[in-house]
Amino acid sequence: MDGRKRVVIEGVYPEIDCGRFPIKRAVGERVNVEADVFSDGHDEVAAFLLYRKADADEWSELAMTPLPNDRWRASFRIEEMGEYLYTIKGGVDHFSTWRKDVLKKIGAGQDVIVDLAVGVEILRKAAKGPDDDGSAELLRCSELLESMAARRDTESVEALLASEGFSRLFRLCFRENLATIYGKELRVTVDRKKALCSAWYEFFPRSCPQEGKTCGTFSDAEKLLPEIARMGFDVVYLPPIHPIGKTNRKGKNNSPKGLPDDPGSPWAIGSIEGGHKAICPELGTMDDFVSFMKRASELGLEVALDLAFQCSPDHPYAREHPEWFKWRPDGTIQHAENPPKKYEDVVPFDFECESWESLWEELKSIALFWIDKGVKIFRVDNPHTKPFAFWEWFIGEIKEAHPEVIFLAEAFTRPKVMYRLAKLGFSQSYTYFAWRNTKWEITEYMKELTSAPVREFFRPNFWPNTPDILPEYLQYGGRPAFIVRLVLAATLSPNYGIYGPAFELCVSEATPGREEYLNSEKYEIKRWNWDAPGNLKDLIARINRARRENPALQEAHNVKFCEADDENILFYCRATEDLESVILVAANLDPFHAHEATLQIPIGELGISEGQSYLLEDLLGGEKFISQGDRMRFRIDPAVIPCHIFRVRRRLRRESDFDYFM
Amino acid sequence: MDGRKRVVIEGVYPEIDCGRFPIKRAVGERVNVEADVFSDGHDEVAAFLLYRKADADEWSELAMTPLPNDRWRASFRIEEMGEYLYTIKGGVDHFSTWRKDVLKKIGAGQDVIVDLAVGVEILRKAAKGPDDDGSAELLRCSELLESMAARRDTESVEALLASEGFSRLFRLCFRENLATIYGKELRVTVDRKKALCSAWYEFFPRSCPQEGKTCGTFSDAEKLLPEIARMGFDVVYLPPIHPIGKTNRKGKNNSPKGLPDDPGSPWAIGSIEGGHKAICPELGTMDDFVSFMKRASELGLEVALDLAFQCSPDHPYAREHPEWFKWRPDGTIQHAENPPKKYEDVVPFDFECESWESLWEELKSIALFWIDKGVKIFRVDNPHTKPFAFWEWFIGEIKEAHPEVIFLAEAFTRPKVMYRLAKLGFSQSYTYFAWRNTKWEITEYMKELTSAPVREFFRPNFWPNTPDILPEYLQYGGRPAFIVRLVLAATLSPNYGIYGPAFELCVSEATPGREEYLNSEKYEIKRWNWDAPGNLKDLIARINRARRENPALQEAHNVKFCEADDENILFYCRATEDLESVILVAANLDPFHAHEATLQIPIGELGISEGQSYLLEDLLGGEKFISQGDRMRFRIDPAVIPCHIFRVRRRLRRESDFDYFM
Repeated sequence: MDGRKRVVIEGVYPEIDCGRFPIKRAVGERVNVEADVFSDGHDEVAAFLLYRKADADEWSELAMTPLPNDRWRASFRIEEMGEYLYTIKGGVDHFSTWRKDVLKKIGAGQDVIVDLAVGVEILRKAAKGPDDDGSAELLRCSELLESMAARRDTESVEALLASEGFSRLFRLCFRENLATIYGKELRVTVDRKKALCSAWYEFFPRSCPQEGKTCGTFSDAEKLLPEIARMGFDVVYLPPIHPIGKTNRKGKNNSPKGLPDDPGSPWAIGSIEGGHKAICPELGTMDDFVSFMKRASELGLEVALDLAFQCSPDHPYAREHPEWFKWRPDGTIQHAENPPKKYEDVVPFDFECESWESLWEELKSIALFWIDKGVKIFRVDNPHTKPFAFWEWFIGEIKEAHPEVIFLAEAFTRPKVMYRLAKLGFSQSYTYFAWRNTKWEITEYMKELTSAPVREFFRPNFWPNTPDILPEYLQYGGRPAFIVRLVLAATLSPNYGIYGPAFELCVSEATPGREEYLNSEKYEIKRWNWDAPGNLKDLIARINRARRENPALQEAHNVKFCEADDENILFYCRATEDLESVILVAANLDPFHAHEATLQIPIGELGISEGQSYLLEDLLGGEKFISQGDRMRFRIDPAVIPCHIFRVRRRLRRESDFDYFM
Repeated sequence: MDGRKRVVIEGVYPEIDCGRFPIKRAVGERVNVEADVFSDGHDEVAAFLLYRKADADEWSELAMTPLPNDRWRASFRIEEMGEYLYTIKGGVDHFSTWRKDVLKKIGAGQDVIVDLAVGVEILRKAAKGPDDDGSAELLRCSELLESMAARRDTESVEALLASEGFSRLFRLCFRENLATIYGKELRVTVDRKKALCSAWYEFFPRSCPQEGKTCGTFSDAEKLLPEIARMGFDVVYLPPIHPIGKTNRKGKNNSPKGLPDDPGSPWAIGSIEGGHKAICPELGTMDDFVSFMKRASELGLEVALDLAFQCSPDHPYAREHPEWFKWRPDGTIQHAENPPKKYEDVVPFDFECESWESLWEELKSIALFWIDKGVKIFRVDNPHTKPFAFWEWFIGEIKEAHPEVIFLAEAFTRPKVMYRLAKLGFSQSYTYFAWRNTKWEITEYMKELTSAPVREFFRPNFWPNTPDILPEYLQYGGRPAFIVRLVLAATLSPNYGIYGPAFELCVSEATPGREEYLNSEKYEIKRWNWDAPGNLKDLIARINRARRENPALQEAHNVKFCEADDENILFYCRATEDLESVILVAANLDPFHAHEATLQIPIGELGISEGQSYLLEDLLGGEKFISQGDRMRFRIDPAVIPCHIFRVRRRLRRESDFDYFM
């Protein structure tokens, strides 16, 4: 320890759980870092942000900017996938302290001859440093200062010291040996851009049987892909595609007694035909799957698979690795349960078994198997029922070799569990969005998700429905409710998804008293009429186009709620930092009645002056409005359309802008 | 790593800067610990608080209580001075999980025969543990369960499992090998009680010269001690008592040109007669000082000395250890300055000198020297102008050998510097109290001081004045202002102090335009008339008696502000947790005008029902009021007295209580 290191560094942000976990960024995003950096006494302090890719040899260094109350800030941009590190350096800035003191003394008319000699000493000492160019500059300045001092030319000294060029010498005079380096190297997990912004479409590939067939195949499903692409999605997520167990196979509506021709739940993985690395024969072959993937890729769609780490009792693992399961005193295998509920078609792995290490390795091999087939996105089923330590190891291992892989955590559970899973590596997370319906609920929840430190590690993915969840709001609200929830999901979060075609067909029939689908597709094969009247496909296409064309909708954490004086009308703004892309969304949350509100438009923050007119272009309906000032009275009738997504164009003063009106 | 450890522990409170710093407690205080403890899945979790004295071999263990949202809490009481450690242990509670599941299954009418066999296994396995008594109990219960299962006596099983005795078996069945221990052992610095609660009286011992003498001595000052004790103080703090330098000695009112008979500032330490380990000859000898200490001790007063680590240019160190100082190119020693201000009578140590280690050791030897003379409390002058690393080492070294020593930091500086000094070891800290005068300022500041985590490491010591600070409020508010500030200091903070006799004589003459005393006692010897008319001595005695007799005023963090519907009237309550001691304080912050307000008395929190009468006894004026309900209309006239300190007696229903009225 060197007791002469006088600067302390604390309160570093972002820093998740004392640096135990990394923050997350996508390529192109920035990391804004703040810290308290201060010294004893009255001396000036200099603070630097150090950052590098984890595998780089040297730190890049940025001088931090002082804020009030001993706080400092700097930010850097992420350029590559993988891992970055950052930390803080701070030290007493003797040069600037001297410079400031001399200027004050000159200002007070005090003699500074000896002080100038001190300054010459500081510059000469620094000139002995390793930087040749710097040394020349320092010597030049020290001579200059010395000659001014000899001439007692205080005026020139004052001008020199006040000059910006001279003040920049602080960096060359900084005493690195007395600098404090913050004790931790903080980590950034850097994903590709799709981790930050993606539009998911979930569907059951078996639910498109040809006439006369009972089960759709990958070849059949391939034909649906162009329409999914036309709707503007970029991720197609398939529930498990593996052989389905026969023992205790569930029937329609989760009936414990399946009939012989029931197809079973895709999550009851594994049969005599194989397990997590096999394709369900009814869907086709591995080649068919690869062909499906290829077609998707041509259409700009990525295929996401389901990682459901559980087995049907018929899974080959149950025979080959009985040590990975729990066995009951009567010799039967322990099936999944949450008493009094029983899931007889599924047996969980016993993560507390003695052979946990071989189990972990096998599960990793499953992911690697599919990555090898080209799958780079996984939706992970119920990660909250497997140990945290497993996920941290598993995701770490996979991402070290394949940083492009994205994991979406399907953890509908308690908040701290959800956040912990995000901290330890999941790229995206399901949320409580489906149950946040009122203005207060939505604004409070968005506040939680975008506040520190959650926003640094938790990337929400908003789903208005899933095969497991048909919220009451959708059950009762009709088509307007589906539109509202779709627009909210797609414009409140850069990541969102729907389970279709149940969603775009506005399927709303629920198991009585529950938020679950009646005749759930989990237990039966559907024959959807994808083009049924009233479907939302064109609307979805418009929404996804708005997302693609407006960078404001692709960023995280830029939602700003604005005032609307009616409790049913939610109004918010999203803008890029440069204000090149500005979106306003107004939604009537009451699917039954029209409501009217005065919307408070944050023109100040949008760089629009009071008297300046601006254009609002509705990206759903196509209408255009010219507006002026910070208030707009607006009526939203759900019978027409319950939401508006306005693009704001604000350069109406230039000649060329007038073609906006054509 | 054992991947089967499924429980995670995070969000531990208190934990200062990731465990970098200890929290503070005094003997007799409690440590309330909270943490998030949770596991994957639906299993029950058990959490334990572990704590011990740092030098003890084994942890004490307390089962934590679950709160909502995966949070757990437990608390322990501090019994001894020194250092304590605490941490958290958590694990899956397989026994309770099993018990809960079986009860649910029984409730749902499911067959539990196999489940009971599982339970018998759990109990038998646990019976192999090291606890003999526990083993017997476990075996007994397993047999009981087995026989009930054999008889299929579900009703008895249900009764057994629901019984409290049976549920307590969880502790014996807890699988220690799969438990998670939180990664950090968090520290508690434990001080003696006076660190928590103390009343300081600062005075200049030289300011009591006998007739015909120019300077008071320790013998003279000794005669003042009985009156200080009568006022109820328990710490007497003396500005530096060492020889004062002659070079550049300051004159009256900080004049840079002292006259030959000016006594100089006591903070310009060191002359030909000695330095920090010597006594100023004008004050007497070391024997006189020891006698002064002895007399103080007999009166229940502890003497606190000033640690001012700086020198006069005449200090022996300047000759003997030139390497500890900064020398200028012209060969002169660098005196203290904060340009354009100069402090020519003081030279600072150069903590960046090559010989910093010998400097640190010498400074430590100064404290040890006075500790050896019996001094156990130090007021540290300007600690924020010496390195943080030094203080952490210095206080750590001293307190390891002498845990009873108390350090008060006189750091009137930026908030983060003040808090850092507190974190690294200062027992008490000066505050911004002197400049918090309005109701809003006071409540906001108290909120800051009592909020997490500040309350865990920062013990405020409230001073309405010091030799350096005569706030405007006191300059202009007259006697009522002195009373208000005294009552606020003494009843808002368990630690407070005054600089007397300037305070109790209501001295208010300031240097024009500054918050400093005119004719400051720092630069001249005063002859105070301690009994001048209008002095506050009796009032001070009553306030200090109230503090001594009412435990509510001796605790930290129990101030609760209550509503008073006039901006000039501050009203707050302090109560012990058991409500045995309850104090209400009402102060009129306007020293010039009477104000009237309805005070909202928090009777619910005080355990007083709506219709119950209670007694308010004014500990300043002696009046008594019987009150009822939660509102009281009250007028406070500063011309009479600007504050009331009410003791609340609330058991008026018992016969014996009626003597309160006599």
